[in-house]
Amino acid sequence: MSPAQIADLDNAVVEMVHEIARGARAAGRELALLTRAQKDAALLAMADAIDAQVSDVVAANGEDIARGQANGMAVNLIDRLTLDEDRVRAVADALRDVAGLADPVGEIVRGSTLANGLRMRQVRVPMGVVGMIYEARPNVTVDAAGLGVKSGNAVILRGGSAAASTNAALVNIMRASMVSSGLPANSINLLTEGGRDAGRALMTARGLVDLVIPRGGASLIQTVVTESTVPVIETGIGNCHVYVDASADIDMATKIVVNSKTHRTSVCNAAESLLVHEDIAEAVVPGIMAQFAAAGVTVHGDEMMLKYAEAAGATGVAITDEDDDTEFLSLDISARVVPHLDAAIAHVQEHTSGHTEAIVTSDLGSSTTWVNQIDAAAVLVNASTRFTDGGEFGFGAEIGISTQKLHARGPMALPELTTTKWVVEGNGQIR
Amino acid sequence: MSPAQIADLDNAVVEMVHEIARGARAAGRELALLTRAQKDAALLAMADAIDAQVSDVVAANGEDIARGQANGMAVNLIDRLTLDEDRVRAVADALRDVAGLADPVGEIVRGSTLANGLRMRQVRVPMGVVGMIYEARPNVTVDAAGLGVKSGNAVILRGGSAAASTNAALVNIMRASMVSSGLPANSINLLTEGGRDAGRALMTARGLVDLVIPRGGASLIQTVVTESTVPVIETGIGNCHVYVDASADIDMATKIVVNSKTHRTSVCNAAESLLVHEDIAEAVVPGIMAQFAAAGVTVHGDEMMLKYAEAAGATGVAITDEDDDTEFLSLDISARVVPHLDAAIAHVQEHTSGHTEAIVTSDLGSSTTWVNQIDAAAVLVNASTRFTDGGEFGFGAEIGISTQKLHARGPMALPELTTTKWVVEGNGQIR
Repeated sequence: MSPAQIADLDNAVVEMVHEIARGARAAGRELALLTRAQKDAALLAMADAIDAQVSDVVAANGEDIARGQANGMAVNLIDRLTLDEDRVRAVADALRDVAGLADPVGEIVRGSTLANGLRMRQVRVPMGVVGMIYEARPNVTVDAAGLGVKSGNAVILRGGSAAASTNAALVNIMRASMVSSGLPANSINLLTEGGRDAGRALMTARGLVDLVIPRGGASLIQTVVTESTVPVIETGIGNCHVYVDASADIDMATKIVVNSKTHRTSVCNAAESLLVHEDIAEAVVPGIMAQFAAAGVTVHGDEMMLKYAEAAGATGVAITDEDDDTEFLSLDISARVVPHLDAAIAHVQEHTSGHTEAIVTSDLGSSTTWVNQIDAAAVLVNASTRFTDGGEFGFGAEIGISTQKLHARGPMALPELTTTKWVVEGNGQIR
Repeated sequence: MSPAQIADLDNAVVEMVHEIARGARAAGRELALLTRAQKDAALLAMADAIDAQVSDVVAANGEDIARGQANGMAVNLIDRLTLDEDRVRAVADALRDVAGLADPVGEIVRGSTLANGLRMRQVRVPMGVVGMIYEARPNVTVDAAGLGVKSGNAVILRGGSAAASTNAALVNIMRASMVSSGLPANSINLLTEGGRDAGRALMTARGLVDLVIPRGGASLIQTVVTESTVPVIETGIGNCHVYVDASADIDMATKIVVNSKTHRTSVCNAAESLLVHEDIAEAVVPGIMAQFAAAGVTVHGDEMMLKYAEAAGATGVAITDEDDDTEFLSLDISARVVPHLDAAIAHVQEHTSGHTEAIVTSDLGSSTTWVNQIDAAAVLVNASTRFTDGGEFGFGAEIGISTQKLHARGPMALPELTTTKWVVEGNGQIR
């Protein structure tokens, strides 16, 4: 946003957000100095506190559900919003998992002694204050708070209004628990008021907020990326392709394509586009289409692909230019036959969202060319696109999947919530 | 900038910049695949080409100088703009130095094999297209182009209008040399037309430009940071402090303070503020003031500091609140006596620009507290602030000094012009 637009925001809301950010900043300074043992103890206490008040959380969640139903919210969104006692306990357990992870703060990334005797080291330190703007699922509230505490950052959370009561209940429990642990309540902050201007005040609080991470649909992310003046990490749009090379193993290709598309459709690492080399299409596509038919996949295909879909009894619709750029997040896939590897690469270069791009091949040259020429957060060979995930990568936690090139690319975990500083020690060196 | 503001830009200028960016993007894809040997050969050829056409560059520079003089440009700016034959040869030599540096592209940052057999590695790759917006000095044009080629990035340069003829001459030579080396001319691009809208079109070319780096004064950087929708790395504002602790060695403190302030005043790592513990003020400040008097430093001091300045014959003016936040870039320094280390840290936390903050101390506790509690790109103990520099750090080159926390913090060299991608190789793994 430009200075003029920022000036148009509701002053009272901006001042409220800045006051919260100043409190977070002070809390962040305390968090930055904690040992891992202190942070882990606070996380375990927060988990216990949530377990102890599970019925309060479920009751607050009931208010959100009732409001959602009254507003005609879709059934699948109601389901994402719903927390029963088991789900609340799972949310608390996630905090215990975070306590078990290594602390990135204090890690020495590199270091050396210069010719003049200066000893220098680049050390991981917390960002300071991290803003998080996200949509429905209330577990993100607890995950973000937990990863914040562990990485020594204060967090300012701006959740979706649909989960307002649940988020407030969870944050109240966590803040009270922090105080019981002798730590500042303002380590964990929730923006509950101020409407859209509160989110905008958060995105433009330069100098008070160090980083904003949006998590949600394409329009939320687009808004944050274009309007924020605080540095942003763009997450999660995945128009992921699977390319089946001429040399691919038929059975492997079929399994990877079907798994990438149908294992879970609402996630950013699901495949949205299938490309098949024309030399192998006759051998591999009928089997894929049969499984697509069984799974209820709608194929947005070119002429060849529609022919195979029809033969297998799968639903087919003629592909449009827009389909090539669409993240369906549903049982839909765009599908094209391509004449050669270079055509597949050119297609991906034009339509990739920079998330995950997979090839299935048994040819070393094709694999190498794919890995070298595809520019994405994750480039896969002979594996399902569903593996691009902080948990699958062994990070133990995930704050989102970055699709930008600055700072973090791919699944982000604790180290990506830190920055570094150079510590330089001498004994009187001057220039 | 908001979509509405972007829509207000001159359409022809936006299309011109986007056309250049598309050309750069295509060139970047070629650069990304080059070996180090190919890139080094191209850099050496560029250096030879500049040497061979040194008189053309000097002649073009003469046009800029004549225009500057006609426009009443200040003498120090004319000096920064001026290239004689020796300076041009030094600019060419800088390209040879870059050729001698290690290639960051292809470095494996981390990697492992997962339990399911997936082999993953995080590999450094070029950003793609890097935009650079900068002011007077024409050597930045060649440095940025050279670091771009070496790191496999295409660059789009937007230099100051004062150096337009010199920049055009240098870029023409480098583009022709790239073609002679069999590489795309569009690796190196200069925005020569379109006025302010061209810079704005560059900053908002999301999807075509991967990163914008502003280098120049505070107002240029502020404009780019607030208006860009392309990711930005903020550089170079340095309101650097030196704090002399109660336990400091008097001679060491004097040398470090004087060197930090007077070694070179126009640079971002020069000291702009002096804080002295009250217990050592009587012992250390008179000697510092005597050297400030000799060097012609104006002291913006509190009551105590003005007393010492007067006694030593140094020029003193009463400090204002604004002085505490001012990057003077001149023979001026703000100076205060503080009651204890915590007061010094609180002052720095409030007024730091996050560049370089130095303590002079012989007390281990003070040193540790300073290093832990000061949040800046570089935290120094017993060394001059002037050491925060890519060359001094041993990086061999510098594209700027980042004062932000995302992606790069402190001096940036070749690795900071790269991003990473995850390469994941399997043999049919699905979830």
